[in-house]
Amino acid sequence: MIYLDNAASTQVHEKVIEKMIPFFREQYGNPSSIHSHGRLASTSIQNARKQIASLINADSKEILLTSGGTESNNTAIYGAVSQNKGKHIITSSIEHDAILEPCKRLEREGYRVSYLPVDKYGLIDPDDLRKEISEDTCLITIMYANNEVGTIQPIKEISHIARENNVIFHTDAVQAVGKIPIDVKESGIDLLSISSHKIHGPKGVGALYIKKGTKISPLILGGGQENGLRSGTENVASIVGFGAACALAKDHMDENMVYLKQLSDRLISRVVQEISHTTLNGHPDKRIPNNTHFTFLGVNGEDLIIKLDENKISASTGSACSVKIQKASHVLKAMGFSHEQVTGSLRLTVGITNTEQEIDNAVDILKKVVRELRAVSPYKNKYNF
Amino acid sequence: MIYLDNAASTQVHEKVIEKMIPFFREQYGNPSSIHSHGRLASTSIQNARKQIASLINADSKEILLTSGGTESNNTAIYGAVSQNKGKHIITSSIEHDAILEPCKRLEREGYRVSYLPVDKYGLIDPDDLRKEISEDTCLITIMYANNEVGTIQPIKEISHIARENNVIFHTDAVQAVGKIPIDVKESGIDLLSISSHKIHGPKGVGALYIKKGTKISPLILGGGQENGLRSGTENVASIVGFGAACALAKDHMDENMVYLKQLSDRLISRVVQEISHTTLNGHPDKRIPNNTHFTFLGVNGEDLIIKLDENKISASTGSACSVKIQKASHVLKAMGFSHEQVTGSLRLTVGITNTEQEIDNAVDILKKVVRELRAVSPYKNKYNF
Repeated sequence: MIYLDNAASTQVHEKVIEKMIPFFREQYGNPSSIHSHGRLASTSIQNARKQIASLINADSKEILLTSGGTESNNTAIYGAVSQNKGKHIITSSIEHDAILEPCKRLEREGYRVSYLPVDKYGLIDPDDLRKEISEDTCLITIMYANNEVGTIQPIKEISHIARENNVIFHTDAVQAVGKIPIDVKESGIDLLSISSHKIHGPKGVGALYIKKGTKISPLILGGGQENGLRSGTENVASIVGFGAACALAKDHMDENMVYLKQLSDRLISRVVQEISHTTLNGHPDKRIPNNTHFTFLGVNGEDLIIKLDENKISASTGSACSVKIQKASHVLKAMGFSHEQVTGSLRLTVGITNTEQEIDNAVDILKKVVRELRAVSPYKNKYNF
Repeated sequence: MIYLDNAASTQVHEKVIEKMIPFFREQYGNPSSIHSHGRLASTSIQNARKQIASLINADSKEILLTSGGTESNNTAIYGAVSQNKGKHIITSSIEHDAILEPCKRLEREGYRVSYLPVDKYGLIDPDDLRKEISEDTCLITIMYANNEVGTIQPIKEISHIARENNVIFHTDAVQAVGKIPIDVKESGIDLLSISSHKIHGPKGVGALYIKKGTKISPLILGGGQENGLRSGTENVASIVGFGAACALAKDHMDENMVYLKQLSDRLISRVVQEISHTTLNGHPDKRIPNNTHFTFLGVNGEDLIIKLDENKISASTGSACSVKIQKASHVLKAMGFSHEQVTGSLRLTVGITNTEQEIDNAVDILKKVVRELRAVSPYKNKYNF
């Protein structure tokens, strides 16, 4: 298998697995217990918290551990707005459902939500943001990098506007953390969501960075773990694994960025040059190094991934989290894509476990599969395939 | 180390670890992806769901996967009341904080909550429940077995009363599942919370049984996983481990019950006979087989667990989830215990990994430690130690 769906999930790094296993086998104490089993678990969590914080230049006290990116996003949104009198939220039209769905719920509860438009690259215009802010705005939540097309938003500028207007700024950075350097202090971000399984850590664990002084309410109540902000016995093994994954991502950031860009550049240049009627989607430069996203005119993306799967390539049409519902990508629609462009799209996301040889093999198979699908395409005559 | 804190957390079973590891190493797909990596993950979750359902005689479609017992409890409470017009909840005074804290939040939001009293054994009186039910009652939530003293509530009777009055009945069964046979169909329970790490599965995963036809709202919104009731990429490895732990618990239920009871009976009889001024707390018979809970007059429980820890025994004063806060047990207070009785209490919870030899060693050490502490106790003269 050639796995080119690293934006959906990643292989857990062997060093991460090694760190986790003792916490199943011997160090299985409850971190709230005061005996040595418990204290060891508690210390290990604090160590992991430092590793997670370090990856984004945060203080370890600013890291709230959660069950994953979706819970982090939900906690950020409900947690921030419930501490505020304002009833207006600003987000973008290309957010992940873990942002859009909580926003929709808040709309049903009487909040007003502005969905900023994006240009053809998937970028918001900071001036649009400025215009939308009102006295009533209590939260700006705009993703760091898009999960489908990989476009990186002007986060510093957004953050600056939020600060000028004294509005809390949250960013869903699930696709960006570990892929590009992120410095929450320098960027002035208030809340930032992270997921472990996107960076070779285990699934089921994530974090929310909460800038010192930013007040949020908890989503899940109980024993008062995480300073009362997230109750439930801590997922010790996974937290330790998440910490190890963050440390690896930090230590190898520069080389990984070069390597991922090398793989995706090769993939992009070969695909665009060797397959006709094909475009790269997202911004040409402002994109995370592991993402490639194409439109193959006259091809149905769903058919394409099924055919690729038959040829032992794992790919995606877009967000893994909504493909089963088979709805057309709201991201591509917001970028102004036609129905045909939307349905003809494919996301190939590379990882540090991929090789150049795999990329070449994948392109060869992709060429063959696109040719086969176009031979029976209803658009065959239109494009003279 | 002699680990006697199995109610706080348990060692992950070796067979469970074995089942989990491939999902870190090779089968790391996102279950929402439609390629073979994703489909394999998805199928594995469905298999685990069947194993979890089977342990409580539920249908696999009735199992909602969560990040643990606390999230299950929060989902049950908020999820059930938000589907209902009533504004009155009935619970007991000895629930876990994962029930009490959500109830307190709802009180702040205008709900009325009745906290049923318990007798000296920690049992509620079904007649008290009957009396509290009104037209406005939208939820009854009463735990299956208490996490501190192990007392098992008359669940069938409670369930019967709830059904008669057309009120949803939720039970926090985190301490009971896998320890005693539970049949949700026969008991007529509507909602039931389970935790994986209490039954030799990994931490960070749990389930909420939702009887077919019972409507609840989701707590966490996003990609729409779990039929829209719990969004977020599924924690595949942990879910598979949880499923395996449930299968092991079911397959070995009878022998485990006999073994745990044998260990705890030995512990109880030796402690009560060989250490003066000592009582067993909780109900003599209606208790889960792994729980023992004592009061040693004239001894401070905190000192006791520190001393036991120095002697390589892991024990607890009560709930692991609140010991760090050092608050006096609300459970023991509700059972009518004096301040001295509350502070002199110790919970020792046995597991299938313990041996009879460990129990004997633990009692010997406990005798020594209690003697040492009583020699310097402020109550020394009162009891003539």
